[in-house]
Amino acid sequence: MAPDRQTQPKASQCDVIIVGAGPAGLMLATWLSHYKINTRIVDKRGSKIYAGQADGLQLRSLEIFDSFGFADRAWKEANHMVEMCMWNPGSDGVIRRSDRVPDVPVGLSRFKQIVLHQGRIERFFLDHIKKHSNDTLRVERAVLPESLRIDEDRVADHSPDNYPITVQLRHLSEDEAKPAQSNGSNVSDGLFRSNLADDDTEDLLASSRQKEGGTETVRAKYMVGCDGAHSWTRKQLGFELEGEPTDYIWGVLDIIPITNFPDIRMRCAIHSAAAGSMMVIPRENKLVRLYIQLTEIKPDASGRADRSKITPETIITAAQKIIAPYKLRYEYCDWWTAYQIGQRVGKNFAHESRVFLAGDAVHTHSPKAGQGMNVSMQDAYNLGWKLGLVVKGVAQPSILKTYQSERRRIAQDLIDFDHKFSRLFSGRPAKDVMDEEGVNMKDFKEAFLKGNLFASGLSVDYGTSMLVAKPGNAADQGDGTDVSSQIHVIGKQALASETKLGMRFPSFQVLNQSDARAWEFQQKLKSDGRFRIIVFAGNVVSPQQKGRLDSFCQALASSPLLAPHLVTHVEVLTLHSSKRTEVELLRDFPDVLHPLDAKTGWDYNSVYVDDVSYHEGYVDAYAGYGVDRETGCVVVTRPDQYVGYIDTLDKEGFRGVEAYFRGILVS
Amino acid sequence: MAPDRQTQPKASQCDVIIVGAGPAGLMLATWLSHYKINTRIVDKRGSKIYAGQADGLQLRSLEIFDSFGFADRAWKEANHMVEMCMWNPGSDGVIRRSDRVPDVPVGLSRFKQIVLHQGRIERFFLDHIKKHSNDTLRVERAVLPESLRIDEDRVADHSPDNYPITVQLRHLSEDEAKPAQSNGSNVSDGLFRSNLADDDTEDLLASSRQKEGGTETVRAKYMVGCDGAHSWTRKQLGFELEGEPTDYIWGVLDIIPITNFPDIRMRCAIHSAAAGSMMVIPRENKLVRLYIQLTEIKPDASGRADRSKITPETIITAAQKIIAPYKLRYEYCDWWTAYQIGQRVGKNFAHESRVFLAGDAVHTHSPKAGQGMNVSMQDAYNLGWKLGLVVKGVAQPSILKTYQSERRRIAQDLIDFDHKFSRLFSGRPAKDVMDEEGVNMKDFKEAFLKGNLFASGLSVDYGTSMLVAKPGNAADQGDGTDVSSQIHVIGKQALASETKLGMRFPSFQVLNQSDARAWEFQQKLKSDGRFRIIVFAGNVVSPQQKGRLDSFCQALASSPLLAPHLVTHVEVLTLHSSKRTEVELLRDFPDVLHPLDAKTGWDYNSVYVDDVSYHEGYVDAYAGYGVDRETGCVVVTRPDQYVGYIDTLDKEGFRGVEAYFRGILVS
Repeated sequence: MAPDRQTQPKASQCDVIIVGAGPAGLMLATWLSHYKINTRIVDKRGSKIYAGQADGLQLRSLEIFDSFGFADRAWKEANHMVEMCMWNPGSDGVIRRSDRVPDVPVGLSRFKQIVLHQGRIERFFLDHIKKHSNDTLRVERAVLPESLRIDEDRVADHSPDNYPITVQLRHLSEDEAKPAQSNGSNVSDGLFRSNLADDDTEDLLASSRQKEGGTETVRAKYMVGCDGAHSWTRKQLGFELEGEPTDYIWGVLDIIPITNFPDIRMRCAIHSAAAGSMMVIPRENKLVRLYIQLTEIKPDASGRADRSKITPETIITAAQKIIAPYKLRYEYCDWWTAYQIGQRVGKNFAHESRVFLAGDAVHTHSPKAGQGMNVSMQDAYNLGWKLGLVVKGVAQPSILKTYQSERRRIAQDLIDFDHKFSRLFSGRPAKDVMDEEGVNMKDFKEAFLKGNLFASGLSVDYGTSMLVAKPGNAADQGDGTDVSSQIHVIGKQALASETKLGMRFPSFQVLNQSDARAWEFQQKLKSDGRFRIIVFAGNVVSPQQKGRLDSFCQALASSPLLAPHLVTHVEVLTLHSSKRTEVELLRDFPDVLHPLDAKTGWDYNSVYVDDVSYHEGYVDAYAGYGVDRETGCVVVTRPDQYVGYIDTLDKEGFRGVEAYFRGILVS
Repeated sequence: MAPDRQTQPKASQCDVIIVGAGPAGLMLATWLSHYKINTRIVDKRGSKIYAGQADGLQLRSLEIFDSFGFADRAWKEANHMVEMCMWNPGSDGVIRRSDRVPDVPVGLSRFKQIVLHQGRIERFFLDHIKKHSNDTLRVERAVLPESLRIDEDRVADHSPDNYPITVQLRHLSEDEAKPAQSNGSNVSDGLFRSNLADDDTEDLLASSRQKEGGTETVRAKYMVGCDGAHSWTRKQLGFELEGEPTDYIWGVLDIIPITNFPDIRMRCAIHSAAAGSMMVIPRENKLVRLYIQLTEIKPDASGRADRSKITPETIITAAQKIIAPYKLRYEYCDWWTAYQIGQRVGKNFAHESRVFLAGDAVHTHSPKAGQGMNVSMQDAYNLGWKLGLVVKGVAQPSILKTYQSERRRIAQDLIDFDHKFSRLFSGRPAKDVMDEEGVNMKDFKEAFLKGNLFASGLSVDYGTSMLVAKPGNAADQGDGTDVSSQIHVIGKQALASETKLGMRFPSFQVLNQSDARAWEFQQKLKSDGRFRIIVFAGNVVSPQQKGRLDSFCQALASSPLLAPHLVTHVEVLTLHSSKRTEVELLRDFPDVLHPLDAKTGWDYNSVYVDDVSYHEGYVDAYAGYGVDRETGCVVVTRPDQYVGYIDTLDKEGFRGVEAYFRGILVS
């Protein structure tokens, strides 16, 4: 041990410290629990969320939940949004339904957009972390960092016993950790987290410092700030958010509405003639979330609105004007808040690949597109496996740079999308074609439909890097960070034309060769920390193709990729295109595709077939993936299901696969 | 209080006492927890099942689980059986695959047959009971009855303060409640529950009686013996099982097989030329259950086989002979048992509508068709709501007689099925057409396919009674018990030609009118204790049909059926056939179909439409139910989803509905 460490005998050590236990922090802890990494996660609040906050779950978030095994819990409890209705003023100024469209494009995913409050989602994460960490990783609540020191001389040294980060933590009492509710209301509100409220972190620290004890020093290898829009971590690093608030002020009500508005259980965008706009988001248990434009509340000279003027009563009054002539009232309000739309994105997402920022800490925008929680979780989903593999000593630390290049680019795209969408939604509808100040409702509908694909999270396309072997310039395709590979290997996109390098591996129905059960193939790409070599074996009953498969498998079987220290990080899956009943697992597929375990026999869960099911029809997965049924190919996916590499199914192709991994793994 | 009760001050009281906490006992407790009935459930074993025992879940059982809300848990954890393979000897005597068939007929249900061990299923019940009883109803383990006294003078009086049953319970110590394992094996076995083992109830009681204390007296209104093939309750009543054991002895192994047999993950029926037969049931976690005919072990003079000769080693040796030339061995055995096939059914399922028997207590048969646990649970599913409604004072006690008439008939059918199937499966395959002693493999296949529908549980068709208003003789259609209605009302089957009186309400996809979400309509018939009036509203945009609907609803709204004391027992659901977008809930449907609650607004979950979905296609539910799209009809379902009544959608039809309920409910 280095001498300077011995002078601090009370400091404990951990591999990763996470600040903030919202959806982003919990997503990160979920990954790290799978890698069995020594992690701590702290949150300044004394209890988890029970109402309000973000609630929309996009398709990609559900796919990710499914890869961890708990999408079904969300799917069962949530409200499913199926149709989006647009309400606009007619020539008489009275609102009427102008359009009905499916809430998400048909055929995009096996999931649809659903709505469930953040507290339940946090519960699923917590249960999952408990199970996968054997209850060793728990959120430490009412704990917040009060100082951060980074040993800059040692940040570049990623050797396993180097802990260059020192964090002092303060443990709060129960009272200290409880946020004050605004306005003396009985209903819980989210104003304390809103951008209309001042941050209370410094107050919490100041009041706590007056008492004795309650501090602790932790040394860590890596730190991740998932601590929200007021991020303490970001402030310590001196990183700024770029962007400006707008003048649009919105209120949010979670109520059980009593109304004669016919589409109250549909997602609705309502543009009134002159009273502002409203978004209706139906939720679980008869709840409905209303996003309501507060046209009568304006920012003051400082550019910020006076929050004391905003109450549930002012918000519902604004809503009643927008939705007139329909009646709207409530007896039960579950939660409420208000915010001022602003689009801002962090200049930096990471400091020296040692301290990272995720979620609201690096991007803020309006909540109505239901993106905030989703993009935040997906930040952490992108970072978690990279940190896991580096801490484990399996992957080269250079891959950590791709976090900023991949996710800052996404945040920039999100802000652009939100900027456009917010303006169209907050603007007054055009009275007629001559009304150039007003918003054309046709433009709004088009923006909504285009935005739908973006909002699904499925259009994410990461740029070239050591993790995504595609042509082009890494800085251009990302946020400017140089993450180009030293290996210069390029995947052969044409061999799997619909399985795009840099995008998530699509899902189609396939059958297990051994028991004929139908699966969405993506379900087999569990988020268990492993890269996957996906062998599109093609038509294995053709002797020529069988020869190619055998030669690929011979190379695979003797490759260091399947050596004992890597086998927990690389899995082989096979999808062939012959008739299921014409082939047999043991006879037609080399052992490496379904390994024998001395205690538990052959692996019956790694070889699949693109064939007709008894009960669930047929979808032609090979066509879906854009792969030739005869000759197949090989696809490599990252632990987060994004496609990293594609090559031919032969010895030469396998050399390409090995080269791809050489750019990532520690040799 | 009556004087005789005061002389027993220590006796506690409950409405229902259940003896045995296997799947039947737990199903009953599940129902009673929904009705908030004061229930006790005791089991002589000190802990629940962790391995082995029954494992097949049939389609109807999954539908029932879904109606309670936990089918998804079973569905997710279980192994799904998709294909059934038949292996028979060729002319050279070597086994080969002769057929592949879907394990359940295509299109029968949204579920398929799955396999999961009984311990998990019991866990789902226990979690559900805990939740719905607010943790007040718990299984009391290591508790067994030692005396039963029935006050015969008072059994006919079903008034709420009459407790004619007195049971003395004995509480065992932990050691006493633990069954001894056979043969000194390390692997847990089920021989102690097998019909090859003697019952240990009397031993348990005798050893416990030598100690002091530990007894308790309970007075109950009703008692249900779910206490297995050796049922103590049945013996107290002096009821007999009818039927005889056969000479066929079978062993059961739950192992992780190491084998080159290609269909080890399929359900297989293997007939060897001369070494006996074997059934392969693939299970969760790489486990496979093997049912293995033990041709070398024969019953002795007493008619029973010597259980000491049976070990896992003798069973696997028999299996290896049957499956040759394929190799089969294991490193891990999870559980094993052996049994002698016998088909027996109880003469009586109930004593004076006060003490009931369910499950193995009244029917035993071979386990290979996967019927035992399913039929047992369905016994209790049939009984539970009837007991619940009678204890609540809502239904007339006479409905309790339908338990025996409905379920004993099913048990008789099951025994007939099993008798035939067992003979075909245990018999030696015919060598050629001249071999009359052997079993013709074509006959076996035919019996299997026919049996498949029976085994699904979906062909159950209860006879006419006060609960099923169909023509014919109640005694003939049931087990001989007279359960004919005093009301003489007959449902109009032709109005819903595919929704059969006496059978379970079929399921087709429909959409929620208010949010366009697709549902299996059966999912809306929750097992929450309620009858349902299902209004097939037809084409409500036709003024004529709207008039009929309004007049029906007028009668419904003023009916005592929806009076406060009944509204928790009768729910109204609507399915119309107009275009979803051409109607509006509040404008086109009378309030009684979607009632207004002063606190929570309109009910948006009771009106559905048979229309095209965005993401899940269209199935034409009206055609599926056999109902005219224009004029509709009304269907009444019992709390267990069985169809009780059908009539026209008008005032006269509603009078029929009222008459049907008059035969069931306390006026």
